[in-house]
Amino acid sequence: MSDRILGSLGAGLIDPDAPLLRADDLGVLRGDAVFEGVRLHDGTLDALDAHLARLTASATALDLPAPDLPAWRTLVGQVADAWGRAGEAAIRLVLTRGVDGGDEPTGFVFAAPIPESTLRQRRDGVRVVTLSRGVTSTSFVDAPWLLGGVKSTSYAVNMAALRYAHARDAEDVIFIGSDGLVLEAPTATVVWAIGETLCTPPPSVGILDGITVQTVFENAAEHGFRTKIMKSTVEDLHTANGVWLVSSIRGAVAVTTIDGKDRPDGGLTKRVQAAAGLG
Amino acid sequence: MSDRILGSLGAGLIDPDAPLLRADDLGVLRGDAVFEGVRLHDGTLDALDAHLARLTASATALDLPAPDLPAWRTLVGQVADAWGRAGEAAIRLVLTRGVDGGDEPTGFVFAAPIPESTLRQRRDGVRVVTLSRGVTSTSFVDAPWLLGGVKSTSYAVNMAALRYAHARDAEDVIFIGSDGLVLEAPTATVVWAIGETLCTPPPSVGILDGITVQTVFENAAEHGFRTKIMKSTVEDLHTANGVWLVSSIRGAVAVTTIDGKDRPDGGLTKRVQAAAGLG
Repeated sequence: MSDRILGSLGAGLIDPDAPLLRADDLGVLRGDAVFEGVRLHDGTLDALDAHLARLTASATALDLPAPDLPAWRTLVGQVADAWGRAGEAAIRLVLTRGVDGGDEPTGFVFAAPIPESTLRQRRDGVRVVTLSRGVTSTSFVDAPWLLGGVKSTSYAVNMAALRYAHARDAEDVIFIGSDGLVLEAPTATVVWAIGETLCTPPPSVGILDGITVQTVFENAAEHGFRTKIMKSTVEDLHTANGVWLVSSIRGAVAVTTIDGKDRPDGGLTKRVQAAAGLG
Repeated sequence: MSDRILGSLGAGLIDPDAPLLRADDLGVLRGDAVFEGVRLHDGTLDALDAHLARLTASATALDLPAPDLPAWRTLVGQVADAWGRAGEAAIRLVLTRGVDGGDEPTGFVFAAPIPESTLRQRRDGVRVVTLSRGVTSTSFVDAPWLLGGVKSTSYAVNMAALRYAHARDAEDVIFIGSDGLVLEAPTATVVWAIGETLCTPPPSVGILDGITVQTVFENAAEHGFRTKIMKSTVEDLHTANGVWLVSSIRGAVAVTTIDGKDRPDGGLTKRVQAAAGLG
């Protein structure tokens, strides 16, 4: 029996082990699709409104039809209900351009267990290597075709960077612009602490506008933090009080080394995780 | 009845209108897949060996299992035989990482008619806008995770650039590095003529090593051309004797305007198309 739940925008709940996409779906052929990852825990969907808003923004950036939000809400609810179990699931919402030459996008919602590696990273943190993203942080200004900040499924470079890290005794990556500025991780936002001020780069450097980092910043005061949006360099990360990778499914994960150099967390990780809603 | 033919690496010829990929195929979720486009005409597959070699190189760059080339050859042959008709088809070979957590890649071969727009572009040429690719042409050296020259399906930016061009009364794009150097088109190699010397950028600037441009260069002398691999700027393209976009399915397509400025072809297009094997 499958431990996954699949819902299609046209057909409701369907068999997760059955094929869903045609070979000529542009999501398959061209990575021409947008997505969101949402955490489900004990029946609650974290920040679903914000994820649906970002899905809509990503779809607009790709000239996809605006998502039918009531239909998506219904489908996400069906999938969450069918998941049923206590504990957590990773929910993915995917919207592709549909088959080549057609006029119907393909939309589906997929629930799967939280990977064992994610649970381990929340507990033990991640070793990180910094890698060039090959772009300057100013590349994306007035260049909408570069899809800065758009959550498309064209993640081959992100995945290749993670594999490159894994082959070098690390679990994750922080991308650096060719101007030396910290950008983002392949699937997370970078947060660091100066004293007890939590900092993160502005989305204008061409990175995804993180939803979980917004949650962290909204909850920061209640956990004793100030917040600041600012640019930084790798050197700033080395001298910070702590560094975390923040994302919807993982929450806040402590960075324990950067390029092989130890990276203490200033004893702050539990409070940052609590601010992310995964205490 | 479908005018398309679909073959799966596991199952041979299958119904092209039936879904083939699971929702959790990493080719769907992450654009984590490689592909090739091959022209079929009157039973002949153009440069199949070169396309299979590049598919293998792309797979290696993505740490995918090496393609089983005899199996791919058999499948491509089955699809081409099933296509049967005289005239042309566009054949696509796609290899994804397969379902998340699985250990079997997904491979398929897909034949479809040459789009009407392609036939028109071969005849009438294309109007082109130049767009920044946001990268310097030196970004890809020693940065294998950036997948320079790797034909992955993560083409969202390429597709967004084409849509951006279409909204500006153009049909295609020439990407420019942030250092001002000509890179490539979203789905083609750029070729220009200085006098009767055909020129193209070196793959080391981070672009795909084009198979059809290799054919053009191999056949150049027989059609009265010299050849040269060199870097260039947009200004060089404006002052060239002619500019073409070269790719497997379209062959050589004349660029008729660049950023709204007329771009004559020096009367060379028919000879360049002949060198590309589409006379």
